[in-house]
Amino acid sequence: MTAPSALAGSAPAARTSAAPLLHPDRLFPAEPAVRAIARDLYSSVRDLPILSPHGHTDPRWYAENAPFPDPAQLFVVPDHYVFRMLYSQGVPLEELGVPRRDGGPVERDGRQIWRRFAAHYHLFRGTPTRLWLDHAFSTLFGLDERLCAGNADATYDLIAAALRTEAFRPRALFERFNIEAIATTESPLDPLKWHAMIRGSGWGGRVITAYRPDPVVDPEFEGFVGNLHAFGALTGEDTMSWRGYLAAHRKRRSFFKSFGATATDHGHPSAATADLTPAEAEALFERVKVPGVTPADAELFRAQMLTEMARLSLEDGLVMQIHPGAVRNHNAALFDRHGRDMGADIPARTDYVRALKPLLDRFGNERDLTIILFTLDETAYARELAPLAGHYPALRLGPAWWFFDSPEGMRRFRELTTETAGFANTVGFNDDTRAFPSIPARHDVARRVDCAYLARLVAEHRLDLDEAGEIAHALAYGLAKAAYKL
Amino acid sequence: MTAPSALAGSAPAARTSAAPLLHPDRLFPAEPAVRAIARDLYSSVRDLPILSPHGHTDPRWYAENAPFPDPAQLFVVPDHYVFRMLYSQGVPLEELGVPRRDGGPVERDGRQIWRRFAAHYHLFRGTPTRLWLDHAFSTLFGLDERLCAGNADATYDLIAAALRTEAFRPRALFERFNIEAIATTESPLDPLKWHAMIRGSGWGGRVITAYRPDPVVDPEFEGFVGNLHAFGALTGEDTMSWRGYLAAHRKRRSFFKSFGATATDHGHPSAATADLTPAEAEALFERVKVPGVTPADAELFRAQMLTEMARLSLEDGLVMQIHPGAVRNHNAALFDRHGRDMGADIPARTDYVRALKPLLDRFGNERDLTIILFTLDETAYARELAPLAGHYPALRLGPAWWFFDSPEGMRRFRELTTETAGFANTVGFNDDTRAFPSIPARHDVARRVDCAYLARLVAEHRLDLDEAGEIAHALAYGLAKAAYKL
Amino acid sequence: MTAPSALAGSAPAARTSAAPLLHPDRLFPAEPAVRAIARDLYSSVRDLPILSPHGHTDPRWYAENAPFPDPAQLFVVPDHYVFRMLYSQGVPLEELGVPRRDGGPVERDGRQIWRRFAAHYHLFRGTPTRLWLDHAFSTLFGLDERLCAGNADATYDLIAAALRTEAFRPRALFERFNIEAIATTESPLDPLKWHAMIRGSGWGGRVITAYRPDPVVDPEFEGFVGNLHAFGALTGEDTMSWRGYLAAHRKRRSFFKSFGATATDHGHPSAATADLTPAEAEALFERVKVPGVTPADAELFRAQMLTEMARLSLEDGLVMQIHPGAVRNHNAALFDRHGRDMGADIPARTDYVRALKPLLDRFGNERDLTIILFTLDETAYARELAPLAGHYPALRLGPAWWFFDSPEGMRRFRELTTETAGFANTVGFNDDTRAFPSIPARHDVARRVDCAYLARLVAEHRLDLDEAGEIAHALAYGLAKAAYKL
Repeated sequence: MTAPSALAGSAPAARTSAAPLLHPDRLFPAEPAVRAIARDLYSSVRDLPILSPHGHTDPRWYAENAPFPDPAQLFVVPDHYVFRMLYSQGVPLEELGVPRRDGGPVERDGRQIWRRFAAHYHLFRGTPTRLWLDHAFSTLFGLDERLCAGNADATYDLIAAALRTEAFRPRALFERFNIEAIATTESPLDPLKWHAMIRGSGWGGRVITAYRPDPVVDPEFEGFVGNLHAFGALTGEDTMSWRGYLAAHRKRRSFFKSFGATATDHGHPSAATADLTPAEAEALFERVKVPGVTPADAELFRAQMLTEMARLSLEDGLVMQIHPGAVRNHNAALFDRHGRDMGADIPARTDYVRALKPLLDRFGNERDLTIILFTLDETAYARELAPLAGHYPALRLGPAWWFFDSPEGMRRFRELTTETAGFANTVGFNDDTRAFPSIPARHDVARRVDCAYLARLVAEHRLDLDEAGEIAHALAYGLAKAAYKL
Repeated sequence: MTAPSALAGSAPAARTSAAPLLHPDRLFPAEPAVRAIARDLYSSVRDLPILSPHGHTDPRWYAENAPFPDPAQLFVVPDHYVFRMLYSQGVPLEELGVPRRDGGPVERDGRQIWRRFAAHYHLFRGTPTRLWLDHAFSTLFGLDERLCAGNADATYDLIAAALRTEAFRPRALFERFNIEAIATTESPLDPLKWHAMIRGSGWGGRVITAYRPDPVVDPEFEGFVGNLHAFGALTGEDTMSWRGYLAAHRKRRSFFKSFGATATDHGHPSAATADLTPAEAEALFERVKVPGVTPADAELFRAQMLTEMARLSLEDGLVMQIHPGAVRNHNAALFDRHGRDMGADIPARTDYVRALKPLLDRFGNERDLTIILFTLDETAYARELAPLAGHYPALRLGPAWWFFDSPEGMRRFRELTTETAGFANTVGFNDDTRAFPSIPARHDVARRVDCAYLARLVAEHRLDLDEAGEIAHALAYGLAKAAYKL
Repeated sequence: MTAPSALAGSAPAARTSAAPLLHPDRLFPAEPAVRAIARDLYSSVRDLPILSPHGHTDPRWYAENAPFPDPAQLFVVPDHYVFRMLYSQGVPLEELGVPRRDGGPVERDGRQIWRRFAAHYHLFRGTPTRLWLDHAFSTLFGLDERLCAGNADATYDLIAAALRTEAFRPRALFERFNIEAIATTESPLDPLKWHAMIRGSGWGGRVITAYRPDPVVDPEFEGFVGNLHAFGALTGEDTMSWRGYLAAHRKRRSFFKSFGATATDHGHPSAATADLTPAEAEALFERVKVPGVTPADAELFRAQMLTEMARLSLEDGLVMQIHPGAVRNHNAALFDRHGRDMGADIPARTDYVRALKPLLDRFGNERDLTIILFTLDETAYARELAPLAGHYPALRLGPAWWFFDSPEGMRRFRELTTETAGFANTVGFNDDTRAFPSIPARHDVARRVDCAYLARLVAEHRLDLDEAGEIAHALAYGLAKAAYKL
């Protein structure tokens, strides 16, 4: 066993790993009897199709089906999970090719980016990013040794060569990944042209959209008032009136449904909801549609709009997803330099019990409404979310999300929610990713971790094996299909 | 292994389970060496008598000793753990026989209720409710297959037949359960007539009361002012004066003690305490005893009354239990329709460190006072409750409670509190139940989970086996006996 | 297996333990394959030198090298981990020899104190204190049975005899403990005379100081204004002016650096930071340097001073440590009677995301600054601290601290932070102790628990064995050396 003088900073020397990149028993408990059960359960769900009802891949990929440009553009530049870790250890984002808002110079040579990435690959030890990357490296490109400075050029060449082949174009990968359906996320102002192009292409891959109305429901969103005007132009409604504004949502949701949407997505700073009278709501709308909105009015409007969206969901059947709790763009200097989604969104404490009450008082008992709750505050799982979802017919729990899309995060999710909410009040797995090659890896991790959890319950005689088999199937496939109406 | 298309909604087909309902090693760790230690520890505590110092069974059962009416009335209708789960998946409470406040129609046919329950029994997979029900089905009624739609009628008939026999009357079950003492919970306004009837019956079962003064200490309780008048009528004190009001408590506590009470119980929304001067307290009482009390005054009065109750406990020796943190009746429509305790109480964040300071500044160093703290906010265990209980002589920690009366909840309780508070600052197990047949099951789960935890400490050489044996005994019996003065 | 009637209160009879006090596999997982990996990893780090970059041992010990007076003065009287537990079970601090502020009588007979301690030793079952004490008893004094009332006198005599020998003087123990470097903590007003004496003695032990400026940066500290005057006298600066005050810090930090300091330490009630303009900061200083400071100004000044300290750290390279979140001196009566640090500091909820933003906006992207964050609120690990440290170049995470310097606390720390922050954004172990003989025990516990965690990752094929070996070394030695610049 080697003993370098420090872990941080300098990279370990290149080395060939004795173990293959992907052990068939990875993520299963070590105890042999439990592992055998986990293996058995996993074998029955490993090859199920992937349902990806919530994610952020780019529909343009599927529409144009162009090759991915190079290994760095595929694995490093667009993935904030990856570059945030290198940044935390002192690597400037410019050196990783992350664009600057001012168009200033950044590294454009994919090979140089890849070398920097490879030299810091040890930073990902113990993280889910490492699991996802190794999965893609191994299953897609046949790598059998760990990435490091020593093999950076060779792996770059190998991946780059593959990316130039037909088999690595987006649609081919989509099919190879065995994706039954995938949702992207678009703003109401999006013309859905890539989705139209996919439809028109005759390709059979099921790529659907989801309705994410932040630009027109959040008065603090950049260009909100202009967005309202655009919303009116797009729908032919008078979006400067409360009634016309709601009608525009109704029309646009219908348009999204025509492109397969089964869900909406709401990423507010908090879980606050409101249930104003129509007159109060209209008066609030009058205040937020002009410049100089107060933070309190902005928050109240977002809150009211969750309830309005629930009302529309009862009409049109779209499933609501509420993803609160991130303090966006925490790093002011980084935001100025590089913009949004740079790995600087930080979770904060999130209240659900009082925040959701207005919405739940209005619609919580509806059996024809599905509201899926996510959290970045794990303390809410057992204290608030499982008790709420274990009671209200309209509520379901989304899976462990974002920073918690990880083995320990998923394990905690099950341990903290199952005893109160059961399995049927959860909705299977969401990969939530913009990193295309990580999709099969993420679903595989989720299936393994859920099977490991179930295996423990079986081994401790808290569940029978046949039941665990049914549940494993539901967690991998059936629950997502039912909850998201796929 | 079968693979149904979804877990939620439709029930799996009836099937005979190969495994017996209760495996002798259930809840023990899978690793053979640890399991052997857990088994050994458990064998020494399995048959200890049950002490149930905090619960909500109906004293009328023991007084009248009438048969339980039918399986649904025993297992489904009164148990909010059960019907909340079915409700969350869309089953109306009316179909489960839960009474409506307006006397509107609900299902009255026990068999129909039972069929609906059985058809949804798979929802309880992975929950403690399932463990408790299987325990009762197996040990009381000899069932050896899982409840499901296919065996609903047969199990109904079997249980119904048993309930008509002498052996299943409340007192016979009490004795069969090996209950050494059980506490019920009554309001100060309760005449304790069932307790008197038990005393007068000559039956030897030890059923004691506990003093739960919410109706006369919470100015927001329904009918508070009327309750004060009734409190005066019952005690002969002038309960419209602060002095007389306190004297009425003193008298009534003494009356409760004459029916065996050793403890009081305080279920406030928060853990807030106050330590006003006598003049301030009197002025506050003048404000809360008239209609239109402000929320702040109501909170302050409840806070002050915790300190007053502690003062009286120092006089009369009753142990205080503080159970804060539930947002009661979160579902407004359900509350209107069905009333309290319908599974819609949801935990919320609870502060202890600042909230308890006034009471602790006054009485925290008293060695002759015992205050037992419970929580629904597990984040407080390691951060606040264990540090407080590991320091103040007057404080002890109640066990994992309510939603956390579960294998994972109990495990987390030990892992989060033991290192700072030790075992001696905890008080053993409380079942806290109104579901009579779940009592032995709940104590059995607690004994198993505690032995599993201790076995891990022994296997990891953090504790010697002889010590673990002493602790297992204390957790199952000795600590409750000492802390509750039973 | 014995079964005493209660655990609390009375002590178990003296008994000889069959097991040795220290099992070689203690704290390793029970599963044989995982244990074998843990053992292998641990064997490579067990004998590494100790780096103790944050602690509270008394530099006078190393300066004077006088014998420790008696077993009680070494193990009981100065250790609030020990006496708080006995106090919680009703033992008055006076009976344990803890001095009273008023000079009133306390036990002075070390043997009597020791007997009381020994009679209550069972209270420490399951606590880290027990692990540390047994480690010291076994490795330093050769004890091979558990401390109890029955062997109190014998152990007292044995330890007392050892303490009179040269081999048990502070410097001999320092060398025996294999301490490569240890930091103490001093106020800017401290003349560092013991450190000077150590330097002057020619002894080679590396004892360094750390700069803890509470008395001159916290306007609520006792004697703050007087402290400012003393600060001026010591530095020759006009510390009644903002500019002179900052210059005094600069000078004094330099003086501390000349005694080896590589770090500063900031134990504020919250993590609040501020970034005022120079004019605002100066105006604030004018308000806080006079009597009658408001709590809000005091908090704002402490907040601003964290940012000022970061600015100075960028100049002089001292590493910043921020340790927020303790409600100090929670027990008012105890504080009046015995003063500070009596085991009555209680953690409270701590926000980092919003609190640190002003400081991070100013300096978070600096690669030449290291700010190490600690917490007593474990809920912040996964939600706030790991996401922050996994992004900002200036941030690192301190280890599990204080109440969480324990096997479960360390395990949770790794499980909750690694997936988001990796290992390289953590800084190894800090013992943070004033109990000298616990130092090797605490580092040994940390090494064992980290190896146990790594062994699980290896056994679950989440990490290769060679990587785990590198990480084990870094966690035990390399990361502390690098982060603290030792």
